[in-house]
Amino acid sequence: MTTPDKNQNAVLATEAGGIGERGLIERIRRRLPMPPSSLVVGIGDDAAVAVVDRGALQVLTTDALVEGVHFDRRFSTPADIGHKALAVNVSDIAAMGATPRLALLSLMLPDTTSADEVDGLLDGLIPLAVQSGITLAGGNITRSPGPLVIDVTLVGSVRPRRILTRSGGRPGDLLYVTGQIGAASAGLAWLREQAADPTLPAEDSGLADCVRRHRRPEPRTRVGSLLGRTRAARACMDLSDGLADAVTQVAEASGTGARIVAEKLPLHPGAVSFFASRGADGVLASLSGGDDYELLFTVQPKARGRLRLVAQQARGVPITCIGELTAGPGVVLERAGATEPMPAGFVHF
Amino acid sequence: MTTPDKNQNAVLATEAGGIGERGLIERIRRRLPMPPSSLVVGIGDDAAVAVVDRGALQVLTTDALVEGVHFDRRFSTPADIGHKALAVNVSDIAAMGATPRLALLSLMLPDTTSADEVDGLLDGLIPLAVQSGITLAGGNITRSPGPLVIDVTLVGSVRPRRILTRSGGRPGDLLYVTGQIGAASAGLAWLREQAADPTLPAEDSGLADCVRRHRRPEPRTRVGSLLGRTRAARACMDLSDGLADAVTQVAEASGTGARIVAEKLPLHPGAVSFFASRGADGVLASLSGGDDYELLFTVQPKARGRLRLVAQQARGVPITCIGELTAGPGVVLERAGATEPMPAGFVHF
Repeated sequence: MTTPDKNQNAVLATEAGGIGERGLIERIRRRLPMPPSSLVVGIGDDAAVAVVDRGALQVLTTDALVEGVHFDRRFSTPADIGHKALAVNVSDIAAMGATPRLALLSLMLPDTTSADEVDGLLDGLIPLAVQSGITLAGGNITRSPGPLVIDVTLVGSVRPRRILTRSGGRPGDLLYVTGQIGAASAGLAWLREQAADPTLPAEDSGLADCVRRHRRPEPRTRVGSLLGRTRAARACMDLSDGLADAVTQVAEASGTGARIVAEKLPLHPGAVSFFASRGADGVLASLSGGDDYELLFTVQPKARGRLRLVAQQARGVPITCIGELTAGPGVVLERAGATEPMPAGFVHF
Repeated sequence: MTTPDKNQNAVLATEAGGIGERGLIERIRRRLPMPPSSLVVGIGDDAAVAVVDRGALQVLTTDALVEGVHFDRRFSTPADIGHKALAVNVSDIAAMGATPRLALLSLMLPDTTSADEVDGLLDGLIPLAVQSGITLAGGNITRSPGPLVIDVTLVGSVRPRRILTRSGGRPGDLLYVTGQIGAASAGLAWLREQAADPTLPAEDSGLADCVRRHRRPEPRTRVGSLLGRTRAARACMDLSDGLADAVTQVAEASGTGARIVAEKLPLHPGAVSFFASRGADGVLASLSGGDDYELLFTVQPKARGRLRLVAQQARGVPITCIGELTAGPGVVLERAGATEPMPAGFVHF
């Protein structure tokens, strides 16, 4: 005999009256929009089957969010976590100049997971999937004896000549970044300080936006796809581990150096004031802070006309020139006329 | 200051002298065979990019092995776990009549994971990938504050008219199963009994083979692909959750009933003697035991000629007729002339 409350707290435990793996899959399936006809076999068979975009290449990525490593349930709702689990993968596809198409969702759920929590994950994941043109094609659900894990695989498509890799940059290319940097790491730092008191910061402090960007990063799907389609960019990477790390990675992969100008960096105002009030160097903190999910890309000077077209269609996403790739080795930060080495990137573990 | 031993026990902890995420990715990359030219962008960028088989559909599946749920490190070596993590996914692709092509490997590693253990996972995974024609195209590595998790996504391809779903069966179709059943669950049951004393059973007891099948299931890649290519089968599913479950699923999805004849079942002799010596009903135990990763499929009577061609090319994998799909509802087991309801399948949690 189990009470309804108990059922809800053991969604996977069929013996305890939970709905079990198949019940949960059916519950998820019912919440999804009607799949497109390109999905030949969807959720419920051994594997999903889908039509491939004609003349396109497949683009594949997988990224997991692990409780206690990538998120803290005190700071993020299940919907925040569901959104972010998809967003970080969309960001990787966008950074290749590709368009996301199909997602597989692999959930590892602790015994205490309730149906409400699973619904919450989907409340965050499904709207972003719909908005990004992504079909949830399948996945896997299993019990976890430890943390909640949400592991997403995303499959996209890209035309052969439109792929953006990290290694396509050349000396003299200008370096650009989308959006603003430092927000997500300032938001997370603030949440950690406030752990005991989860009141949200005042909207006008700029910090509320930082917290929002930590919880619900907006992948630059449209800009990534435009950069590939117009061939405005030569190399591209997302900022999952921070801008300093991305600049270093792109320069290394391209066999170049890089020079970033501190005064040009589009620092998030809320992050600037947060770091300043904590006595930290806002430039360094914003450069090495992770989780921004903006795009860093390189543009050869003569392609700036194409980039203007991209900027016009970017629907308000700022695109800022922050420096250039150089012939010499070394990645440097130029500040007030002096140069210093680039700080290290964000390390997840 | 860290000792070499300490480094080995904290492969991901860069602060403690471990090699960190990137070092580990590089270590894995170096162990892989040269990728085919169809892999346009491989490990090390934001996403992998690959050429799609012309005229084919994509087939996508993901399945995770979680420590404490799907494996026990007392009973399986890291190489066993790496093999099985890929094998269970290959089995899903084979069950669609498809051919596996690309894998993504998502690892969640406890802080105590050593480089040797990661090498061990690859010692099991890479040979099966090579043998199955699978290219490891990318993945993700992260820390786990709990269990070791190995989550594999597998992408395959299939020609449009060769897809095998669970729902393609019709009343009157004959039901076939590959290989033998009951071995993996007998092997696991035996290992659990012996937990304190890990001596292997004598080779001639049949149990050694059961233990081997629990640890290293052999997915029926070739038979699955042949069944799709020749269109000998109409419906197909793998036995991850046991034969009883698979028969029930195929019958439900196809809108039919099913009748299985106990005397026809290809029970593994080691499993039969193990279950008999424990006073269990070997037929029921073998039907409901999971982890066999054989294929169940349906064949319309007039396609039996095509099935003979498949059997001739199956390289010794037995294919046994065990019953048929029926018009009436209900899935029954016929034994010594009497019928009984089909036992429930294996429940992972």
